[in-house]
Amino acid sequence: MITSHAVMIRQHGEPADVLFTQSYTIDDEHLAPNAVIVKVLASPINPSDINQIQGVYPSQPQKTTQYGTSFPSFVCGNEGLFEVVKVGASVTSVAPGDWALPLRVCSGTWRTYAEFSDDVLFKIPSPAQSTARGKTPLTLQQGAALTVNPLSAYLMLTHFVEPKPGNWFIQNGGNSAVGKFASQMGRLLGLNSISVIRDRPNLDEVKQQLHDTYGATHVITEEENNSREFSGVVKKWLSESGGSLQLGLNCVGGKSSTGVARKLQDNGIMLTYGGMSFQPVILPTSLHIFKNITSAGFWCTRIVEENLQLKKEILEKIISWYEDGELLEAASTASEYTGGDLASFYSERIADSKSGKQVVVNAVE
Amino acid sequence: MITSHAVMIRQHGEPADVLFTQSYTIDDEHLAPNAVIVKVLASPINPSDINQIQGVYPSQPQKTTQYGTSFPSFVCGNEGLFEVVKVGASVTSVAPGDWALPLRVCSGTWRTYAEFSDDVLFKIPSPAQSTARGKTPLTLQQGAALTVNPLSAYLMLTHFVEPKPGNWFIQNGGNSAVGKFASQMGRLLGLNSISVIRDRPNLDEVKQQLHDTYGATHVITEEENNSREFSGVVKKWLSESGGSLQLGLNCVGGKSSTGVARKLQDNGIMLTYGGMSFQPVILPTSLHIFKNITSAGFWCTRIVEENLQLKKEILEKIISWYEDGELLEAASTASEYTGGDLASFYSERIADSKSGKQVVVNAVE
Repeated sequence: MITSHAVMIRQHGEPADVLFTQSYTIDDEHLAPNAVIVKVLASPINPSDINQIQGVYPSQPQKTTQYGTSFPSFVCGNEGLFEVVKVGASVTSVAPGDWALPLRVCSGTWRTYAEFSDDVLFKIPSPAQSTARGKTPLTLQQGAALTVNPLSAYLMLTHFVEPKPGNWFIQNGGNSAVGKFASQMGRLLGLNSISVIRDRPNLDEVKQQLHDTYGATHVITEEENNSREFSGVVKKWLSESGGSLQLGLNCVGGKSSTGVARKLQDNGIMLTYGGMSFQPVILPTSLHIFKNITSAGFWCTRIVEENLQLKKEILEKIISWYEDGELLEAASTASEYTGGDLASFYSERIADSKSGKQVVVNAVE
Repeated sequence: MITSHAVMIRQHGEPADVLFTQSYTIDDEHLAPNAVIVKVLASPINPSDINQIQGVYPSQPQKTTQYGTSFPSFVCGNEGLFEVVKVGASVTSVAPGDWALPLRVCSGTWRTYAEFSDDVLFKIPSPAQSTARGKTPLTLQQGAALTVNPLSAYLMLTHFVEPKPGNWFIQNGGNSAVGKFASQMGRLLGLNSISVIRDRPNLDEVKQQLHDTYGATHVITEEENNSREFSGVVKKWLSESGGSLQLGLNCVGGKSSTGVARKLQDNGIMLTYGGMSFQPVILPTSLHIFKNITSAGFWCTRIVEENLQLKKEILEKIISWYEDGELLEAASTASEYTGGDLASFYSERIADSKSGKQVVVNAVE
């Protein structure tokens, strides 16, 4: 028998108030033929995980009593990296020692061990497997955070406007995790990019880093993004390069979204995937009518849950970039869980996540 | 020789400052084989005509000196009703006495006579022809105003979301010309509609008229449109009817556009075709991301100039509704031009158009 500790909730609320630890046993001696037991190696804390707990996120796990709670409850966490521990008699897709990801959201990744059917797991190369092929192994943090930020960045760059090399995209939140993935992937795909960032004391340093390290073609400030005069500079970049700018990525809203939309050429589309300013998207009527600019939403979950094959193909692409050393992961802080109350450990990391992305590493042997 | 008087401009500006009358002759004795001489029976004054004169409209006619001006100039007016006067030897599509419309914008309809090639004219039934088929003849005002407002309403209802009978659409500006065409055509197509209008002293009377005469299923106020509580009423209408609401038409902007977008069901689209409030379109981030609401622009000219066959098919449909007495035209004021300076006559009608749509009827024999 394997004992798993899981972070669960039975009702929505602030994480510190509602998270509890449920320990339950997994019978590894009598596995169903298609069952796979995994150890959770690492799991990030994403804003969507927290919003799911708060009840303000539309995608919600089914509550269940199968883990021994007296009330229907669910295991928190949507993203994570697994190591396969044991497989049922008919499982051929993964073997013990393999690394794997949950193919679907709402899989409950905030726990130490779990049992899944083989069809909801996606095998990725373990460090030993990458090394054997002469490749760079994925880190725990890279493996644990494949299915949200890098997947979103790749989908936004490729799924709406054909990513023709030489063309451009513009994004606000250029210094965010998704923003850095987008500029890097843009460079890898041959796209030019304009990353909009907020002014800050070390502006030149951040600009330099986003350009040199993260592949942004140009980095501009929100003030420049909002300036009508600056539009001329952008037009000059476009005419000199000969490429077109028909894709905008917006995670800020408010006047920043207006500035992004104004830069787009005729028939362009702006994808909104976040609203960090807590302001709505604001679009001048003339952009809609006379430039035929479309404003659409982007929610990774909606697209990939309906198309798991696409998800798998994109994950393979991202993994190959990591293995070739061509892609840098987003910065995060890893904390090793070595025992004690798991829910309290996650609660503390959730509190810490205001200062940056947190990843919990399961360091219990 | 036929003498035509044309309203022209050589430079953009306010109509009263820049319109001038140019008189020129059309040689009706030596017609090119494909030439058609028409008398302009009537031409409306649309906001887009005025914006074109002011230089704030993206679609602009080519300037020319062919009408005898010493500077390149263009004839104003985009919409109008013609009577065919004389045709060249090879013309078979129209004959003298027929009614016709210009197929393209920027045809210069603010004049008394004009010469076109036969391929840019679209024959519509003259009163005699409708009567001979036992149909109701089109009025001058119906014929003169086919290609902007009713065409826009029909395209918006049918070109983006399949107009499945029983489904719904919501529109602000419900008491506007396009709004009344949309609710009427909605009824004819089997669609339910919610028309949003501003509060006014005779609110109940206008509501009643929009419902009884113009076919709106429900008429609500902007206050109701903006109210979160009222959304429950709309949801009840939808669930009782079983139809879905995935199309919104916005000609107002600002919070009215937000209210329209909030009513849409998942994957809905809001088309913006005007901005009467002079406020931009405002869309909450969550509608974009989690309800997958798309905000797009609608500009009739862009769609139909690239697809004249579609334009012809829709005009046939609208004409058949008029001939069957199933569609009411938009209210307008007709003024008969009986002579004198044509540019001054149009300038005065443009000034009058603040109080309602103006149509100039050419009453010179």
